[in-house]
Amino acid sequence: MAEENVKVGLVGFGTVGCGVARLILEQADSIAAKTGLRLELACVVDTDTKSPRPVRLPEGILTDDLGTLLNDDTIKIGVELVGGTNAAKQIQLQMLAAGKDVVTANKALLAEHGSELYEAARKHNRCIAFEASCAGGIPIISGIRTGLVANNITAMYGIVNGTCNYILSSMTAHDESFSEALAQAQQKGYAEADPTLDINGLDSAHKLAILASIAFGCEVKLEDILVEGIESVSKDDIRYGGEMGYVLKLLAIGQKSENNRISLRVHPSFIAKANRLARVDGPFNAISIFGNAVGQVMFYGRGAGMMPTASAVVADIIDVALGNSATTFRHLHLQPKDEAGSVIAKTGDFVSRFYIRLMVKDQPGVFSQIGRILADNAISISGVLQHEGRGPQDTVPVVIATHPTRQNKVTAALRDLDNLETVCVKPVCIRIVDIPEDKDQ
Amino acid sequence: MAEENVKVGLVGFGTVGCGVARLILEQADSIAAKTGLRLELACVVDTDTKSPRPVRLPEGILTDDLGTLLNDDTIKIGVELVGGTNAAKQIQLQMLAAGKDVVTANKALLAEHGSELYEAARKHNRCIAFEASCAGGIPIISGIRTGLVANNITAMYGIVNGTCNYILSSMTAHDESFSEALAQAQQKGYAEADPTLDINGLDSAHKLAILASIAFGCEVKLEDILVEGIESVSKDDIRYGGEMGYVLKLLAIGQKSENNRISLRVHPSFIAKANRLARVDGPFNAISIFGNAVGQVMFYGRGAGMMPTASAVVADIIDVALGNSATTFRHLHLQPKDEAGSVIAKTGDFVSRFYIRLMVKDQPGVFSQIGRILADNAISISGVLQHEGRGPQDTVPVVIATHPTRQNKVTAALRDLDNLETVCVKPVCIRIVDIPEDKDQ
Repeated sequence: MAEENVKVGLVGFGTVGCGVARLILEQADSIAAKTGLRLELACVVDTDTKSPRPVRLPEGILTDDLGTLLNDDTIKIGVELVGGTNAAKQIQLQMLAAGKDVVTANKALLAEHGSELYEAARKHNRCIAFEASCAGGIPIISGIRTGLVANNITAMYGIVNGTCNYILSSMTAHDESFSEALAQAQQKGYAEADPTLDINGLDSAHKLAILASIAFGCEVKLEDILVEGIESVSKDDIRYGGEMGYVLKLLAIGQKSENNRISLRVHPSFIAKANRLARVDGPFNAISIFGNAVGQVMFYGRGAGMMPTASAVVADIIDVALGNSATTFRHLHLQPKDEAGSVIAKTGDFVSRFYIRLMVKDQPGVFSQIGRILADNAISISGVLQHEGRGPQDTVPVVIATHPTRQNKVTAALRDLDNLETVCVKPVCIRIVDIPEDKDQ
Repeated sequence: MAEENVKVGLVGFGTVGCGVARLILEQADSIAAKTGLRLELACVVDTDTKSPRPVRLPEGILTDDLGTLLNDDTIKIGVELVGGTNAAKQIQLQMLAAGKDVVTANKALLAEHGSELYEAARKHNRCIAFEASCAGGIPIISGIRTGLVANNITAMYGIVNGTCNYILSSMTAHDESFSEALAQAQQKGYAEADPTLDINGLDSAHKLAILASIAFGCEVKLEDILVEGIESVSKDDIRYGGEMGYVLKLLAIGQKSENNRISLRVHPSFIAKANRLARVDGPFNAISIFGNAVGQVMFYGRGAGMMPTASAVVADIIDVALGNSATTFRHLHLQPKDEAGSVIAKTGDFVSRFYIRLMVKDQPGVFSQIGRILADNAISISGVLQHEGRGPQDTVPVVIATHPTRQNKVTAALRDLDNLETVCVKPVCIRIVDIPEDKDQ
């Protein structure tokens, strides 16, 4: 097989950029043997050309001038690994205008400005490949888009943020507080110095927007997604939930109801300990997908990190070079937002089970007050846990698990409960998510 | 997006054929919305056109004449779901010669005659797509070939036969004998009336041949694979292994050593209970793959059945129709067997840990005899288990777990042990496979 040379330009020489450079340099022979394509790293652009990096580039290819990449017509593929949304967007637009296909890991940019970028790509007859934008090295985008394309996908449940999963796993395993676990995650390199985007759930929402748009075939905007982070999770709730048989995970959830309404949510979720996702620990990611033909499929692996993410970026580079990405991209049809708008379910409408913890005064009649408020809101109780022991203001914790209930009923009940004189601390409410497991019949 | 019509011909209207027909008929609108391709089932060929099927075909497309499909030039894609190797091979060759791309789920045929078929496809400038040949609905072939292409894949461990996994799961969970569990699997439709190909490991070997050839980029022949089935597994060994912390699975294993030798094996394997694959139960499949960049990735789902397999077949039909399969197929470079021959490791050379059960006379000096034979063969013991209780001929079971040992040392020791007058039953030997788990560092 004659080898075909493929020149690649890289913008952003940070952690993932170094991984991509290393993988291209070290695996060029093996990739050529497998695919017939010889990848050549022709140009690496970064504003910082001085700092030492863990990879040694060929002489003369590192530059701070994007023009070097843009003006080199032999470079057909531009990889944007700058991150963020402003500069990155301009860089992608410029690369597309210069006739280059774009490969990116930038979930924030695609989630916020995907439509505009896809349109620009179509205008220039180019494509954008973004396998690395979700779940690091796990080939989840091609899995959904190609492998499961024949399915009507009814639901997906994903652990797609390794930082949050590391923190929640540590809190669970070692009975640590959120801040203790966060500090340790930062020390181990699993959380950034400013972890805001991870722990507030927004990073997971970015990924859900991308995954859901492909799985359900409709344009998804960030504002369509209910987003709650893990910042206020307490180890007490993890422990009480554990006693009730649950493990706490930050899940990205996309569900299609029978009337084709799509519900999109990112929030801390109690899931059954026996569920496969409950056993995904530390910085790992996993996504369970349900299709009408395939049943349940789960993908598991490292959702971040230099080399796992580079694995996905280079896979995309090869897919683009083969021409397959262009075909897939051209045939990717997302129902536009104005049509899809009506089918995105309203947050208040969705039904879930709930874990509610109240810190109440230890006095007669409290249970009756709580019970009446729940009954008035048509909320049915599936379990109650009350431990001895004292909280602030001499309170005791009462933990309630509900049967499936509409979100707005629970919101109303929480408001009423919070107004009770005997409830001394703002009630804690965490959703219980009953992930179906496809089982032996 | 203008829709493109794609006419599909199907040969083999059995279980999977019915699933494919149903999926095409029922999902045509949804697939067209997602991809712009409108699949049309133009022709279904089967020798049996009379038996009732669980899907209703459009009038007039079912025929017993393959020529109807071959001579219709508007049909660009032929799906072979006949199974077996003789007729199926001729059908594929005829379809390729008639200018049709081929989609198939036929692992036996590809494992045994893949090279010849691939060559025929190349000669006619056609492609063969075979996602459905391994692990049913799990997109494992595209996962390896596309998603993990940038990796040097160092190992794969797969549960790829749902029948065996169902039987072993039942034996483990319910302390059943092999024949009891097999009967139940047959009753539930998880094992065929003649289950030979499944339980003797050959079906797993077919799949391993296909997966390993793609993962390691070299031609694999069935004779390169060590194959042992589960027919002689006893519930006693499952129980003793369980007491030592292991679960018994039929694993398909491909490993690349540091000197690039590839070891390929299918055999009953004791794996640690904590390993992710130990929790894959019933008819499910899962494959853990290790790549130098991505680390561990696991794929999980239904490995067989009408609709899961149909999911993969229809995904391939779409991939072929888009033109992507042709590109992937054209660029798939397998190192030819005559070059690869030298890199396939010899069976006797491979190193494993072993579980050995001896039924010995309960008399003084037996342990010393056993110990001397193991020592003479340089086999180091990692654990011993002896229960009270009697076996045939008034024997007691002695179970030994070894440290990593070369296969030929163990083979020699087993021969010596079997010759001992105090060892009354042929020794049982099951490999212990220490699957690495990619962990939080």
